[in-house]
Amino acid sequence: METRNGTLWLTADEQSSWRIHLEVGKLLTHRLDRELRPFGLRYSDYEILAHLSESPGHRMRMSDLVRATLHYKSRVSQQVTRMETAGLVYREICESDRRAQYVVLTEQGRETIRMVAPHHVAAVREHFIDLLPADLPATLCKALTPVAEHLRAVRGKA
Amino acid sequence: METRNGTLWLTADEQSSWRIHLEVGKLLTHRLDRELRPFGLRYSDYEILAHLSESPGHRMRMSDLVRATLHYKSRVSQQVTRMETAGLVYREICESDRRAQYVVLTEQGRETIRMVAPHHVAAVREHFIDLLPADLPATLCKALTPVAEHLRAVRGKA
Repeated sequence: METRNGTLWLTADEQSSWRIHLEVGKLLTHRLDRELRPFGLRYSDYEILAHLSESPGHRMRMSDLVRATLHYKSRVSQQVTRMETAGLVYREICESDRRAQYVVLTEQGRETIRMVAPHHVAAVREHFIDLLPADLPATLCKALTPVAEHLRAVRGKA
Repeated sequence: METRNGTLWLTADEQSSWRIHLEVGKLLTHRLDRELRPFGLRYSDYEILAHLSESPGHRMRMSDLVRATLHYKSRVSQQVTRMETAGLVYREICESDRRAQYVVLTEQGRETIRMVAPHHVAAVREHFIDLLPADLPATLCKALTPVAEHLRAVRGKA
C-alpha cells in the first residue's frame, strides 16, 4: 500500500526491524554503561579509551576522535576534559599546526583499559553476542556496513 | 583466546557486529532527526506521537510512555511539556488515581502525525530498509527480539 507521497508503507517485519534495531541499541548502551560503573567509567569514556588504544602512538586528533565517536564536538571536548581530570588522557597541541589538538592516552589510561577490557567483553557477550544465532554477527557486518557508509556520507547534509 | 577473567575474546565479526549495530543506531537516529526538522519535530517527538497514535484512545499513562521510549522520566516529562506548548499533546490527571498522569494526543497532534508519517516512512526506507538485503528485516526481528527482551528484563539491575 502506498502513502500519500507515493512511498510504500513498511511491512510488519520492516517496521519491527528498524524499531527493534534502535531499541536494542539504546538498551545495550544503557547496559554497557551500567556494567562499567564499578570502574568509574561510562560507556562513552570506554569508547574513547578504546579508540585511542587502537590508534598508532595511542593518540588521535581531536577532530578524528569526534568523527569516530559520532558525538558533537562540544560534548566530546567536555568529556575529554573530565577524562583529563581523571588522569586517563591528556591534550597536546601540534607543533606544526597549532590549531590541531591531539588527545593522548596516559599510562594510567592504558592500564585502565587493559584492566577493564575483559569485563567489558564479558558484558558484550552476555548482553548481545551470546544471545544471537552463531551466524548472525557475520550477516550483520555484511548487511550493515553499506548502511553505515551511506549514513556517514549523508551525515550533516540537509 | 581467553581474557584474564576467562571470557573468550570476540572474533573479528563479533567485534564488528556490535560496534556497527550501535553505530548504525546512532547515525540513523541523527538522520531521522534531521529529516523531521522541516516539520519542527525531533525524532524523539515523533516517537512519542507514534506511541500515542497507536494506543487506544490516543492516550498513555506517563509511566508507560517513559517505559516505551526507554528514556529517563525527567527527560520524557520535559519533552511532553515542550510538546504541550506546541499543542501536540495534553496531560490529564486520572480521576480515580490522582497520582497517575496520562498524556493524550490533541487533534493537532493527530493531524501532525498523519501529515508527517509518509515522509518519515520514506526516510526510514531510504536510509535503512531499502539498503538491506530483502530477507534481513525478518532475520533481524527474529534474532533481536530475544536480545531486546533480555535487555529489558535486566534494565535497571546492578
